[in-house]
Amino acid sequence: MPKTNLKMHAVVAPTPTVIASAYDESGRADACTLAFYMVCSHKPPCVAIAINATARRKTLASILASGAFALGFPGVDQMRGADYLGVESGYNIDKLAALGWSATPGRELNVPVIDQLPVSLECAVVHTVTIGSHTQITGEVKNIQADEEMLDERGKIDLALTRPIIYDEESFSYWSLDENVGRAFALGAELRKEIRGE
Amino acid sequence: MPKTNLKMHAVVAPTPTVIASAYDESGRADACTLAFYMVCSHKPPCVAIAINATARRKTLASILASGAFALGFPGVDQMRGADYLGVESGYNIDKLAALGWSATPGRELNVPVIDQLPVSLECAVVHTVTIGSHTQITGEVKNIQADEEMLDERGKIDLALTRPIIYDEESFSYWSLDENVGRAFALGAELRKEIRGE
Repeated sequence: MPKTNLKMHAVVAPTPTVIASAYDESGRADACTLAFYMVCSHKPPCVAIAINATARRKTLASILASGAFALGFPGVDQMRGADYLGVESGYNIDKLAALGWSATPGRELNVPVIDQLPVSLECAVVHTVTIGSHTQITGEVKNIQADEEMLDERGKIDLALTRPIIYDEESFSYWSLDENVGRAFALGAELRKEIRGE
Repeated sequence: MPKTNLKMHAVVAPTPTVIASAYDESGRADACTLAFYMVCSHKPPCVAIAINATARRKTLASILASGAFALGFPGVDQMRGADYLGVESGYNIDKLAALGWSATPGRELNVPVIDQLPVSLECAVVHTVTIGSHTQITGEVKNIQADEEMLDERGKIDLALTRPIIYDEESFSYWSLDENVGRAFALGAELRKEIRGE
């Protein structure tokens, strides 16, 4: 199949939508919505986010000053508020208050855990590096909080309940998840058996 | 809503599924499937991946030795092969050959672009750091290739056509995308107007 070269740009694949939050020096909770997020270590559990460092970003400043952040995972029900947190600046207004959202200090770290989000991490900054336009921040996860009703019978987070929103920069839109289409590791292990002739 | 603390673990949110590939010193293409991926700069376009550094990973070794990698985005049609690339080791077998997949050298970098994947990036390694169990690799995107039939009429990648697979480590399964549920930036800008009373 012939491949076409595309105009250079950054985001070609779907990415999860996350909300980073941190207390500023006056104790106000800042929050901004991001699509640049990955898990980056299993042991200890760490996550990385990247935030534009070429613009004035109040949440970035508060994360770097406080050395900690919360990371919340909005669902479809929080999509409009999440999108707002990505377009308004905390230098203009108290965004969480404007939304009618609230935050509770973390149980392990002094970070604002947004009450309205179904799942949140409390993260301690362990590394930062600025490459290109963005600062990459690695946070060690010190606690995970979830709404009890978002868990399945084994106590695992159930994506059919949290209904995460997936960001698509090609069409500037959000997607919901459809169906569970396959078992990870089982599909590959079965194929490995076939290939090995076991 | 009362929050429950969860047992500490790494992956609580859905993540895109990507396939990293690189040539080894003999010119063989190695490839492995990852869920730890993010965009980390708009200008220049950069992406970051994290690969377990506590295990012998042939693709990781080849990326670090060659200083470059391709990053492919499998769709639902490639799910079984993608899962296989995550469970088998390149030290045991030539995985791409075993799948009947093939790779073509990149147009900008000496990286194996997997022919069967609808969208691929060619990336030059610009930064690495090991934190916890994983090495984080930042790559500057030097070229983007896509199958022409995966593009919409504006030449943008159409997720309804590429049908990306989203990895869920809570249930060890893959999800497909459902529907476009909202316009990014438009939802938030509308709400900002309401809040500002404009």
